[in-house]
Amino acid sequence: MHIRYASIKVNPVIIFFFYFTNALKRESGSYMKNHFTNLLFLYIVFISSHCCFAQTSELSRISVKGNKFVTADGNVIIFRGLDASDPNKLAKEGHWNKEYFQEMKNWGANITRFPVHPVAWREQGKDSYIKLIDQGITWAKELGMYVIIDWHSIGNLCTEMYQSDMYETTQKETFEFWRTMAKQYKDNTTVAFFELFNEPTIYNGQLGQCSWTEWKGLMEETIGIIRAHGATTVPLVAGFNWAYDLKPVASDPINAEGIGYVSHPYPMKREKPWEKQWTEDWGFAAEKYPLILTEIGFCGPDDRGAHIPVISDESYGDAITKYCRDRGISYTVWVFDPNWSPMLFTDWKFTPTRQGKYFKNALKTK
Amino acid sequence: MHIRYASIKVNPVIIFFFYFTNALKRESGSYMKNHFTNLLFLYIVFISSHCCFAQTSELSRISVKGNKFVTADGNVIIFRGLDASDPNKLAKEGHWNKEYFQEMKNWGANITRFPVHPVAWREQGKDSYIKLIDQGITWAKELGMYVIIDWHSIGNLCTEMYQSDMYETTQKETFEFWRTMAKQYKDNTTVAFFELFNEPTIYNGQLGQCSWTEWKGLMEETIGIIRAHGATTVPLVAGFNWAYDLKPVASDPINAEGIGYVSHPYPMKREKPWEKQWTEDWGFAAEKYPLILTEIGFCGPDDRGAHIPVISDESYGDAITKYCRDRGISYTVWVFDPNWSPMLFTDWKFTPTRQGKYFKNALKTK
Amino acid sequence: MHIRYASIKVNPVIIFFFYFTNALKRESGSYMKNHFTNLLFLYIVFISSHCCFAQTSELSRISVKGNKFVTADGNVIIFRGLDASDPNKLAKEGHWNKEYFQEMKNWGANITRFPVHPVAWREQGKDSYIKLIDQGITWAKELGMYVIIDWHSIGNLCTEMYQSDMYETTQKETFEFWRTMAKQYKDNTTVAFFELFNEPTIYNGQLGQCSWTEWKGLMEETIGIIRAHGATTVPLVAGFNWAYDLKPVASDPINAEGIGYVSHPYPMKREKPWEKQWTEDWGFAAEKYPLILTEIGFCGPDDRGAHIPVISDESYGDAITKYCRDRGISYTVWVFDPNWSPMLFTDWKFTPTRQGKYFKNALKTK
Repeated sequence: MHIRYASIKVNPVIIFFFYFTNALKRESGSYMKNHFTNLLFLYIVFISSHCCFAQTSELSRISVKGNKFVTADGNVIIFRGLDASDPNKLAKEGHWNKEYFQEMKNWGANITRFPVHPVAWREQGKDSYIKLIDQGITWAKELGMYVIIDWHSIGNLCTEMYQSDMYETTQKETFEFWRTMAKQYKDNTTVAFFELFNEPTIYNGQLGQCSWTEWKGLMEETIGIIRAHGATTVPLVAGFNWAYDLKPVASDPINAEGIGYVSHPYPMKREKPWEKQWTEDWGFAAEKYPLILTEIGFCGPDDRGAHIPVISDESYGDAITKYCRDRGISYTVWVFDPNWSPMLFTDWKFTPTRQGKYFKNALKTK
Repeated sequence: MHIRYASIKVNPVIIFFFYFTNALKRESGSYMKNHFTNLLFLYIVFISSHCCFAQTSELSRISVKGNKFVTADGNVIIFRGLDASDPNKLAKEGHWNKEYFQEMKNWGANITRFPVHPVAWREQGKDSYIKLIDQGITWAKELGMYVIIDWHSIGNLCTEMYQSDMYETTQKETFEFWRTMAKQYKDNTTVAFFELFNEPTIYNGQLGQCSWTEWKGLMEETIGIIRAHGATTVPLVAGFNWAYDLKPVASDPINAEGIGYVSHPYPMKREKPWEKQWTEDWGFAAEKYPLILTEIGFCGPDDRGAHIPVISDESYGDAITKYCRDRGISYTVWVFDPNWSPMLFTDWKFTPTRQGKYFKNALKTK
Repeated sequence: MHIRYASIKVNPVIIFFFYFTNALKRESGSYMKNHFTNLLFLYIVFISSHCCFAQTSELSRISVKGNKFVTADGNVIIFRGLDASDPNKLAKEGHWNKEYFQEMKNWGANITRFPVHPVAWREQGKDSYIKLIDQGITWAKELGMYVIIDWHSIGNLCTEMYQSDMYETTQKETFEFWRTMAKQYKDNTTVAFFELFNEPTIYNGQLGQCSWTEWKGLMEETIGIIRAHGATTVPLVAGFNWAYDLKPVASDPINAEGIGYVSHPYPMKREKPWEKQWTEDWGFAAEKYPLILTEIGFCGPDDRGAHIPVISDESYGDAITKYCRDRGISYTVWVFDPNWSPMLFTDWKFTPTRQGKYFKNALKTK
């Protein structure tokens, strides 16, 4: 099975390197293989992150094969991306434009994520909001970046209670949102993923109860609605504890083929050392299903917007990127905005923050 | 068990003919009996469709006896009627008047159906809409026609997702609608039926899932609410596939006595020949429960408003009317309006369309 | 286990009497013991109902111990109180003031109950309504009276159908109300009780069905939400038949520790003699759980506002107060308002009605 990292358009150099690497794989031992593979990835990312011409052709349709995301030709693709802030928020501030997307591309992203807040969806109105998404998808496509559409609620969809007003939605509105997205984007290959519900949480019971069986049922209902519209876009499903915990997947996975799972393993979800706990809590799922961490990120304790559970340092960056690299897990970093935290840049010159510097480097080199 | 077709007021001629027929039945074989019975029916409908004086007495209360609808005296009554369009729509256009009802009567209807669209119910407001229904019931009663009140939604009441905006409702609104109807019309014998939900459908999954058990539960809840108000009006229950499919009734009928079942067997729901499939899909239920097809109809492929599943020709008319006649199944034809399709007339002089001509004749002669 | 009736601030005279009584208890037989105890209570209530100085210290936290409500020191407290009308209604009329609370205290109440009507909660708005509750709590505390916050809906929370418009709410709104109350009053010891839902009823099926299992689930969900916020305020749970019937508690109690049960045994819920039926319907629960009758009351058949089920006479007062006294059951009387019925006073000079005279005496002497 071939592996492609950031690059989307296959060019001869990349093809050569893949051929070369695979030849090496057949000959070399495990250590050497990994070493060369890593060097290769570095090179590929370097090339692809500098290929800035407008992409006019369609991106290759993403689907699921075993525990990997693959392109239409069956090659594995691992995503390294950046999370946009809400398109509606960016549009209001005058930053929902191609420059914003170009910058994400410049940082090394092969995917971006649009967090559609329910309150913004209602305030802006369906038709108007869809125009924003359409624009974003066009710019992303021109730059060869995939898109995740993310229904950005936080709370308990069972009781319809949420962490704060901006996340208020209903089961009906959630189903209708995905019905609309399925109709609108089923033939759009730039939209790789439908992330069904950002962060499910009962907030330690403050939002009432929701069993895994109930949650699973809601997700299966949503996937059914999407697929009944003929959309093959890959649904992404998260677990409880603010999308951290995927343990129930071990014994009771979502009853649907061709989906991916999500975790948001922010640094303070667990004490160091993280790796063993990550594997127990969500990493185990990567052995069987494709996994994408649609939110990772950190900031220092005194940084603007510092809050639980994101406070940490570069050691977190090293740990989570290595963990993903070793296991072929995709990720996108929260958040490409100068005001929401943990922010990746500080001003609209895109001056990187501490984590901005870290991940700008990480995306380009890993 | 005596059988009455269209006539509501019993007059001496009819009584004589019933006596005569029953005498014949005792003497003649099966073929002859049916032949004479059919002749009789022809004659009765002919008489009753010309009796145009104002009916001031109450209509006889309709109830269920075995697999038949019966009047208060226990005589079987089979309904042949015409579906009005939405009272609110007709009122806006200035056609919610006695002339409209007189015309339905002239065509041979002994029943009409008011399709109350949830969006119209909300827009017009409960009190104002009830006035429209009251007017319609009064006109119908004066003309000796029964009324079906039909909650005209199309979609999935389980997930509260619908085919289009005009059909949007909720479980709560549906329950409240019937609570209101039960209070308002429980003592009104002109209102023969409460058709609980026009066309249940999951739209091939686009509106999410709804099991028969869930649907059955919603219908039983609604029937319970109606009856708790002391209303004995007969509830009508439809099945999935836009009210076409009653198969689950065979093994898991609605847990309530004294109800009728509904099917809407439009021509394109199945390929010709229809009869065997109709029996398998819904006709079988007529052996055990009273059945009324509250929507049948057709139009040619090039007729205005032609759409799936109504395109056909007179052979459909022949098939469905014979099927009903042979089994004592009631029906009403969609739709007595010049704009909604398949329409029965083309202008407000009530000029019949192709199916208008067909069913105008059918109601008068069968 | 010590018993305290109305008094909240312990003063030396009371302490002496408790000591004296307990000495007596050790010596005397059952009859004598009860006789002396009752005399003692009379005296205590007499004292405490005249102690009108502002209470600046916190009231003792109420909790559940066995089948009793207890103060922080573990002493049993039995409540005798008066039900306020809706704070929003009183505020509009200019009577939401300390004088109103002082009068309740003068009548002998050691607790009052705020019936928050869902429609008033929405109309006034959350923040504004909370200010009213805050004021009421402050006045109550200054006078040494506890407070019950009561979500004053009547109907079926399962189907979300209600007795009339003023009681309209949803499961979600109910959960959110208690989420708000829990956050707001978890550290306020004057708020002794959260009465989760005033009067559950299916209105003989007119509001649809709700099984005890479903109702129990809704109550457990609500209790879970309250406690997840760290609130130890005692939840009160009522049963069906307008909060009269607690029979299902015998075999299937609410799965939560530290709660109280409620009944509203108005006189016409059962025929005389009441006592045996009361025990079967709800009184049995007092042997295992703390019980509070948050609505009792009566009026004569010709009194203003007379309606089923409240019409009776003083024999009801005698029966219900004796029943409670004999079993250590708490109660509050409906309603301290001159317009809602059965009213306790007739004008804003607080002139007692017939039941006003009865219960004014009852609270002071029993």
